[in-house]
Amino acid sequence: MTGSINRQWILAARPAGMVGPEHFTLREKPVPAPGQGEVLVRTRLLSLDPANRAWMSPAPTYRAPVMPGDVMHGFALGEVVQSNAPDVSVGDLVEGMLGWQDYAVMKATEVARRDARYRPEALMGVLGITGLTAYYGLREVGRPKPGETVLVSAAAGAVGSFAGQIAKIEGCRVVGTAGGPEKCAWLTQELGFDAAIDYKSADLRAALKDACPRGIDIYFDNTGGAVLQAALFQMNTGGRIVCCGNLSQYNAEKPGPGPMGVPGLLVVKRLRMEGFIVMDYFATRPQAEATLAKWVEEGRLKAQEDIVEGLENAPAALAGMFAGRNRGKLLVRVA
Amino acid sequence: MTGSINRQWILAARPAGMVGPEHFTLREKPVPAPGQGEVLVRTRLLSLDPANRAWMSPAPTYRAPVMPGDVMHGFALGEVVQSNAPDVSVGDLVEGMLGWQDYAVMKATEVARRDARYRPEALMGVLGITGLTAYYGLREVGRPKPGETVLVSAAAGAVGSFAGQIAKIEGCRVVGTAGGPEKCAWLTQELGFDAAIDYKSADLRAALKDACPRGIDIYFDNTGGAVLQAALFQMNTGGRIVCCGNLSQYNAEKPGPGPMGVPGLLVVKRLRMEGFIVMDYFATRPQAEATLAKWVEEGRLKAQEDIVEGLENAPAALAGMFAGRNRGKLLVRVA
Repeated sequence: MTGSINRQWILAARPAGMVGPEHFTLREKPVPAPGQGEVLVRTRLLSLDPANRAWMSPAPTYRAPVMPGDVMHGFALGEVVQSNAPDVSVGDLVEGMLGWQDYAVMKATEVARRDARYRPEALMGVLGITGLTAYYGLREVGRPKPGETVLVSAAAGAVGSFAGQIAKIEGCRVVGTAGGPEKCAWLTQELGFDAAIDYKSADLRAALKDACPRGIDIYFDNTGGAVLQAALFQMNTGGRIVCCGNLSQYNAEKPGPGPMGVPGLLVVKRLRMEGFIVMDYFATRPQAEATLAKWVEEGRLKAQEDIVEGLENAPAALAGMFAGRNRGKLLVRVA
Repeated sequence: MTGSINRQWILAARPAGMVGPEHFTLREKPVPAPGQGEVLVRTRLLSLDPANRAWMSPAPTYRAPVMPGDVMHGFALGEVVQSNAPDVSVGDLVEGMLGWQDYAVMKATEVARRDARYRPEALMGVLGITGLTAYYGLREVGRPKPGETVLVSAAAGAVGSFAGQIAKIEGCRVVGTAGGPEKCAWLTQELGFDAAIDYKSADLRAALKDACPRGIDIYFDNTGGAVLQAALFQMNTGGRIVCCGNLSQYNAEKPGPGPMGVPGLLVVKRLRMEGFIVMDYFATRPQAEATLAKWVEEGRLKAQEDIVEGLENAPAALAGMFAGRNRGKLLVRVA
């Protein structure tokens, strides 16, 4: 059923540094009505991702920035509660850029139907953009071979935890970096990583040498910054750096210098550093989803979700993600 | 005929900064005799390349560094004057790491026979490692499409001048950077570049914007440094950076910081930065050489060589290359 109030988180001010609840204002509006070709979607699960922070900066990324006064952008899973479009039915489970709000009016072409056989949390995590980002990034960009060493940064995060587990499935030696001993223990004891490095305490370069005695063949980079710098020196000839994210920089007021060794080490070691966007691989999305679902079912891929209850808690949850408080895929349950 | 003296340039001391004649000593030795399975080669043309400087540093590159007291490493074309190997005949034209000396004893497996139908200078330039580096780097790593914009740094140098011309043949808009107005004029008037930028005088970022109004799709990077930094900001989504060399850093005492925007721009614009080594593509070398030879014959590819006479002038010529004095492929005629 449709309530009568639509709560919306508005970008109140662009953060200069670390994002926090003070950058958002909660507003209440009437639930909007869909026009012709449009649907009304009730948000169920809101995905919180490092990219949310990037969209709050004035520089365009792969999408336009959020403007102050706008509803905060966010990817979400929702249920169609009203439809003026022939291909979409009330009750359909759909995903799209619904934003940080209870209800969104969307063009039917702006949402994608999801398979209600799966858990909603899985649809937003291991079987959603997050899982697919890890899957395509590791397989299509990284191109792992059995026996290779794969390093994953922010390995206790959503994409990282999947990327590392998929690398294990591919037969690689897998090392993760994470913040704090609890997360590190979780990586090795629960997720099957071969080693984990606490980036907050360790001498990174020495710890990487220890954990990767045969060097690094693939570095799945979610962070940039210090881990990228240390990894570059340990890369093997012919190595690949999958540029998935730049977590260490999203809250920086101005961009720091790039890593030493670019481009020198790329030339000498014939390295490839490559950014990607998951949508470029969507031609094979059904097969990829089926593979991920099978791995989950077989117990080879653990789909950890970290659920925050209530739309009202979204800003604090986003800040918490950058403080390293989540483990696995961070979602806000809205309804 | 074989003379009785073998002049050899010895690495006297590792340069800390810019390389100069003071880092070499000329020594005279008797001409050596080849053992079983070996050949004696008389050096005819010595190739001078930015990589020579890299080999003088203590850090290993794709080959071991030259040690003080060693004959300076160098790639060269020579003539077999004595052979104790069944597959190699006196009079054969061969290439290999003969070093900076009049004569070298080589295992037969360490030299490769070249086709004496071609000019020796072409064999060391457009039809040698230099031309092939430009050819494979642009085509296999850069993967140009007609209509794309290609930027080449050190475009008046050996590899750069070929890479730019090959990009024109591939139907691209081609912009080069070079030092000084004369080289820039040569690029546009003689080699057919669409635009040239004097990196010494220009506001690089503004000049790149002007010269590349539709952004940069491929940056063929021979220099790293300031041109790479400026280019990164002008790269189009899906762009490729061919990491061929790092000329701006070879004489640096310690590595500078990397370019800002790595890895952030790689993520956001889905860029690929990739190093390569020409030998990885040698399975198709005969076809590549034939293609290059055909382009030269048709007048579509100008093979500019800059010849220094006499082995005694090799150290000064190498220093001159880093001072930007050569145009096209720099060779020392030894005999």
